[in-house]
Amino acid sequence: MAEPKENVLMEKIVSLCKRRGFIFQSSEIYGGINGFWDYGPLGAELKRNVKELWWNTMTRQRDDVAGLEATIIMSPKIWQASGHVDTFSDPMCDCKGCKKRFRADQIEPQSGIVHRYTGALDLDFLSALDEKYGLGKGVQGSWLEANARHGTLEDLAASQPNLKPAIDEILSTEKQRGKSFEPFSVLLPAGKPAESAKVKAQQFYKNRGLKNPEPFSPTTEKVESTTRFCNECGSELTEPKPFNLMFKTYVGPVADEENVAYLRPETAQAIFAQFKNVLETSRQRVPFGIAQVGKAFRNEVTPRNFTFRSREFEQMELEFFIKPDEVVEAICGRVAPAAEISKPESEQRAASVSLADPSSISYAGKMPAARSDWGWEAWHKYWVEERIAFYEGIGLSRATLEEYWQKPEELAHYARACVDILFKFPFGTQELEGIAARSDFDLSQHERFSGKPMGVFDEELRAAWGKLPKEKSDELWRRYYENRKKYLVKMGVEAEQATKDATEDANGLAKGQYIPHVIEPSAGVDRLILALITNAYSEVTETDDKGKTNTRVIMKFHPRVAPIKAGVMPLLKNKPELVKKAIEVRDRLRPWMNVFYDDGGSIGRRYARQDEAGTPFCVTIDFDTLGEKPELKDTVTVRYRDDGRQERMAISELLNWLLPKVR
Amino acid sequence: MAEPKENVLMEKIVSLCKRRGFIFQSSEIYGGINGFWDYGPLGAELKRNVKELWWNTMTRQRDDVAGLEATIIMSPKIWQASGHVDTFSDPMCDCKGCKKRFRADQIEPQSGIVHRYTGALDLDFLSALDEKYGLGKGVQGSWLEANARHGTLEDLAASQPNLKPAIDEILSTEKQRGKSFEPFSVLLPAGKPAESAKVKAQQFYKNRGLKNPEPFSPTTEKVESTTRFCNECGSELTEPKPFNLMFKTYVGPVADEENVAYLRPETAQAIFAQFKNVLETSRQRVPFGIAQVGKAFRNEVTPRNFTFRSREFEQMELEFFIKPDEVVEAICGRVAPAAEISKPESEQRAASVSLADPSSISYAGKMPAARSDWGWEAWHKYWVEERIAFYEGIGLSRATLEEYWQKPEELAHYARACVDILFKFPFGTQELEGIAARSDFDLSQHERFSGKPMGVFDEELRAAWGKLPKEKSDELWRRYYENRKKYLVKMGVEAEQATKDATEDANGLAKGQYIPHVIEPSAGVDRLILALITNAYSEVTETDDKGKTNTRVIMKFHPRVAPIKAGVMPLLKNKPELVKKAIEVRDRLRPWMNVFYDDGGSIGRRYARQDEAGTPFCVTIDFDTLGEKPELKDTVTVRYRDDGRQERMAISELLNWLLPKVR
Repeated sequence: MAEPKENVLMEKIVSLCKRRGFIFQSSEIYGGINGFWDYGPLGAELKRNVKELWWNTMTRQRDDVAGLEATIIMSPKIWQASGHVDTFSDPMCDCKGCKKRFRADQIEPQSGIVHRYTGALDLDFLSALDEKYGLGKGVQGSWLEANARHGTLEDLAASQPNLKPAIDEILSTEKQRGKSFEPFSVLLPAGKPAESAKVKAQQFYKNRGLKNPEPFSPTTEKVESTTRFCNECGSELTEPKPFNLMFKTYVGPVADEENVAYLRPETAQAIFAQFKNVLETSRQRVPFGIAQVGKAFRNEVTPRNFTFRSREFEQMELEFFIKPDEVVEAICGRVAPAAEISKPESEQRAASVSLADPSSISYAGKMPAARSDWGWEAWHKYWVEERIAFYEGIGLSRATLEEYWQKPEELAHYARACVDILFKFPFGTQELEGIAARSDFDLSQHERFSGKPMGVFDEELRAAWGKLPKEKSDELWRRYYENRKKYLVKMGVEAEQATKDATEDANGLAKGQYIPHVIEPSAGVDRLILALITNAYSEVTETDDKGKTNTRVIMKFHPRVAPIKAGVMPLLKNKPELVKKAIEVRDRLRPWMNVFYDDGGSIGRRYARQDEAGTPFCVTIDFDTLGEKPELKDTVTVRYRDDGRQERMAISELLNWLLPKVR
Repeated sequence: MAEPKENVLMEKIVSLCKRRGFIFQSSEIYGGINGFWDYGPLGAELKRNVKELWWNTMTRQRDDVAGLEATIIMSPKIWQASGHVDTFSDPMCDCKGCKKRFRADQIEPQSGIVHRYTGALDLDFLSALDEKYGLGKGVQGSWLEANARHGTLEDLAASQPNLKPAIDEILSTEKQRGKSFEPFSVLLPAGKPAESAKVKAQQFYKNRGLKNPEPFSPTTEKVESTTRFCNECGSELTEPKPFNLMFKTYVGPVADEENVAYLRPETAQAIFAQFKNVLETSRQRVPFGIAQVGKAFRNEVTPRNFTFRSREFEQMELEFFIKPDEVVEAICGRVAPAAEISKPESEQRAASVSLADPSSISYAGKMPAARSDWGWEAWHKYWVEERIAFYEGIGLSRATLEEYWQKPEELAHYARACVDILFKFPFGTQELEGIAARSDFDLSQHERFSGKPMGVFDEELRAAWGKLPKEKSDELWRRYYENRKKYLVKMGVEAEQATKDATEDANGLAKGQYIPHVIEPSAGVDRLILALITNAYSEVTETDDKGKTNTRVIMKFHPRVAPIKAGVMPLLKNKPELVKKAIEVRDRLRPWMNVFYDDGGSIGRRYARQDEAGTPFCVTIDFDTLGEKPELKDTVTVRYRDDGRQERMAISELLNWLLPKVR
């Protein structure tokens, strides 16, 4: 479906992205490739900053998360266990007329008159029969007349016995070959001449191998809002068939079923598959998480909304493994209600960093400290708050975001809850990130499919279980057992086996064993970049001395994500002392941040260029810097992108002043 | 080919990588997938550090390089232009016996006796013929006798005319069907009974559809060092056929030839395809470069040497675009000889950084400043030196590296020179990076295939050209023309057209137009990681109080790449004051570097764990830190990984002391 033309803001953004080198169409010189986008110099920096901030916040700044970087191509068995091979698909229809393929759930309803054909005969074939049986124009002529009256071949044979042998031959050969007797229908908008339906039918039967097809006279019917016909040519669509969205390839020199592999459609599954390896090598214990950033691929049938839904994209996913509630209760005697988890204090989290007092950066530690009595609801709420705070920290205020708590009927069968964090894009309010409580589904699936144990041993649980009153341990045992059994039955394990396995699983509790549950904050990098660009986009209209007005773009990125942190500019290009000093300033800042040195054009134009690139600060070296006014020697002008205000600052203070703002 | 078992060091490294979470086999719980490796928590940090340092050094710290992040799946036309569709292949043979596929250039030569069969007859078919023609055991029996004497069917028909009709039927039907008369041969090692060759031949003809095959009596021949037979079963191999190493998939809902796409086998081509977009949006002018880091995929037939040759890997590539020598000469009057490019002063480049004097980091500026009279040889030499300096800066000394200048006959046809930077791996001295002078081949190919101009306009050239003496401009015109023509002819453009196009290209010089040449430093991330791990690996054997010796591993990573920069440890876990202070220290360092907090086990064991992880410094908080000795209050012990020495330091100085070492 085409984007609405009226979305002027989106058009401006796409155009700016190309003009300033944020985002290009992939393979543009070859006409592009639908659903693939490249990041140019500014876009690549913006994306690196976002990924780096996520990794820092989620991994390096925490004791309880370890990183992973797994391959895009993995064993195909992973996608059997995850369910992607069987169910990660869109329903697709083919048009029987123009042969185009469509997503069944994206067909626009249409109304009009359906012309239904039950078949067609090949007039050339009829002529040949007439010749063979010496009937003159007998069969062809008579049938054309009969057909005009909706008569059938059988009627014709009954009424004109001399034609019977020829008609029998038609019925036996053509019916066998199935070329002629295939039904076909076309939808015509009310008022369109019936002849155009016949033309389409003729083409349809031609494609089936009839040389000169004459369709049987159609029946017609008025229909409203049907989605069974092609939106482009009106022909009938095939029944929807599932089309798997994973890109498929073959690994190794032989392209057969044994060597099929898929490009991962999400990064999460690698985390589950390597759960035990990470647990065993990282000195982590549940609760803890594994974080990964990386590319994923989905063969979307209709990529759309610029980079929002593309076929190659990047994800930032955390799988945070927690104790099942029964285990928490066994150890702590209670499970904390989610209401006890208070929101973080955003102001504190955004605290700045200074080189003079380097410990002043403090990403971590502002959220309530995790407590051992947190069950899945508390952890889920914690991660929702944590993630929103992340977005706030890079410039997406709460006002630009929405929290959407999925309704029970919307949840995947294994999910206990899922919150979508939405952003108000120009094309609609859409998901940036989903935070799902996925129970123990994923690890359980991989345990069953790989035959490798995915559970953990928890000494604290073992010790606590031994001390529980019998009615308590029975109750917890029962709840754990019921959950396990419900999962197994849902997965198709037969009742008897499910009872046996669930019993064994629940018996594990007393030995300190369980399969961890998981909370999954899963964010899309590309859609976040698009949100940041949308959020930053602003225009300012200025009037110059001559009264000419000019509208220009200012990209108001948060300094933390801005591709360039500071523009460094000598006032004039042709004064070597200014240039030398400017290069000194550049080299002083550069080891700590991305700076852009620019000496081309008027200073106003250079500022405007940096505004459009989203550079939060420009530093100008002028004659005062060189000591023209002695009291200003070795000071520079710092100009603020968002309001154009300027202030004078000593070069020696510059880095310490900038650094807390851009980190 | 299996790795030599005696490579003990390699085995130790693979085992350490798994044990400590540097590198895991991809999809290990499902038995793995050959040629794919995952990076665990420590590996992921190591890899991030390396990529970040490369990006910083190559892009952010320079004015003359812009970044790019393009997609893995691009238009397939890119791979036609680059030549990958036609020529990026290995020669492969199939075994006619066991059906396995092998790289033709990796077949081990074998000697022995070849048994050559020209065909086989189906004894069941012969019996049926005897019955049909009422010949008793006539055909079957007579032919078995004749075959034992190497007699042919034709001989048999001539000598026993009564068998002729049956034999004619054999020749007409079996020959037509081609089941029987297909040659087949087997190599047997000298001394092996001939019967085993016959068994293989019978199997071969069975696979072709004969129910009960009796091969024609074979001829035999002694052969030496042949590579035409299967190394596993001895059967004949098919002729080598090219097998393309690109992974293939289909984009969009229809899997047909129109929708074929490939996973990129290198990141470089995206840079060429987006050259003009980057040029136009980044305010760069030739000479300048475009840098990219990202995944690439090659369907290697025999992935090997751990992560060195894998099917999914990551590259760090720079394409540095320069003026052709003729242009340099037109502008500057000369092209500087490469000998004028001196080596950088390594000590200066490794200069440390300090927070107190933040400008003390200085990645850039130590190499000789680029001069406008540099031609391709000077730029090539510059980048070789620059890249070696990079490796030195992350701990690979010149002694561990080798420079290999490819010989003229080894160069790709478009390359003017190529230097491989090699590292001494345990399995041999192998390439880490190649630095190639690729002429204007790549941009020219994309210009021809896309029909989009890839040249640049250079005002300086236009101005200079107008002032050249005629004999000079004629000479430069001629050289440029000859180079262009040579390229065009090599690419199959017919002579007349090539002359015309080359003339037009050379005429462009006067208008300031040319296609840039390129120098390409192309490094593999995964092999660099493996080199860093190999280089860091060291063992120390210690004897404890009781005389027991123990050998343990110390990973001596350069602090810049070390996954964890500092371990932070309270002396005892059960003293809340120590723990509180340790957490304060952790939180002071953490915003600036990856630290690991560890309070489990004896301090000696914790040090040993960090040594194995390659953590260069450990910081211990003890009772003196709390003020047990008042003069030591708020000081900590810093322990060095490589020699175990310790020193006392104020907490307030710690960050400023560490930061220059790890950045």
